[in-house]
Amino acid sequence: MAILYFEDAEVGQLRTAGPYLVSKDEIIEFAKKYDPQPFHIDEAAAVSSVFAGLTASGAHTFAIVICLLPRAQPYSLRILAGLGWDELRLPTPVRPGDELDLDVAVLERRESKSNSDRGIVRNQIHLRNQKREIVLQCINTVLVARRPVAKI
Amino acid sequence: MAILYFEDAEVGQLRTAGPYLVSKDEIIEFAKKYDPQPFHIDEAAAVSSVFAGLTASGAHTFAIVICLLPRAQPYSLRILAGLGWDELRLPTPVRPGDELDLDVAVLERRESKSNSDRGIVRNQIHLRNQKREIVLQCINTVLVARRPVAKI
Repeated sequence: MAILYFEDAEVGQLRTAGPYLVSKDEIIEFAKKYDPQPFHIDEAAAVSSVFAGLTASGAHTFAIVICLLPRAQPYSLRILAGLGWDELRLPTPVRPGDELDLDVAVLERRESKSNSDRGIVRNQIHLRNQKREIVLQCINTVLVARRPVAKI
Repeated sequence: MAILYFEDAEVGQLRTAGPYLVSKDEIIEFAKKYDPQPFHIDEAAAVSSVFAGLTASGAHTFAIVICLLPRAQPYSLRILAGLGWDELRLPTPVRPGDELDLDVAVLERRESKSNSDRGIVRNQIHLRNQKREIVLQCINTVLVARRPVAKI
């Protein structure tokens, strides 16, 4: 897989990863530990909830994004550090049997004012289910290395 | 625990939860599934990483926020739905043995333009370790029910 530097990141460039198959057992196991609400852990109770069925915790959906991100193809940015996450929305719940696909598009890049060896890249992230409904979207900002200058 | 409606939410109102003790085993178990980088799953490799030791995945730290939120005292807002997360930052890594405390402060409230029975509340969230260093901060926006009008 190609490793790209800051200079190589072009607005609109796309990477993809998936599918990630979400099982009922995984939804329940995650939620029992971190988000034990009836509609995340109890199939019978979930039927009469606002979601009319078992759904994954939002923290679980975010963890799946983190899981898929390093697998995104066909290239990888030379990331130095994660700076943050913005505008995180969960418009459609994740349900058992969903197959989730990630796409990451370069939204913006700008040079670092303080360090000439790095730059800042903002990525638009979408996680979609098999119906192409967005289950999670957010903007991820990362610090990316510039291409090392060849020494003469 | 008191249940508060939209009208009761005042800017600056504070809720707290914790501590949440993070074990080495929990850090490794979470990361093996969702974020298997050496500095999250391999104690020996982590020593020579940029973090100089084992640290929790950011997705794990976010899951701990989700876990602590419903336990926040001394009151609970009558939340109808979560609308999103903004400005999520992870300034200090979480390490084995850390004891994490959550605080949630009302940042802003505004009435819904489309529905008179609800309003929007923005909360500033901080998760801190035992040294009071911020390990996660973000803004959480929720839809909150207004107090039902008594029928005459």
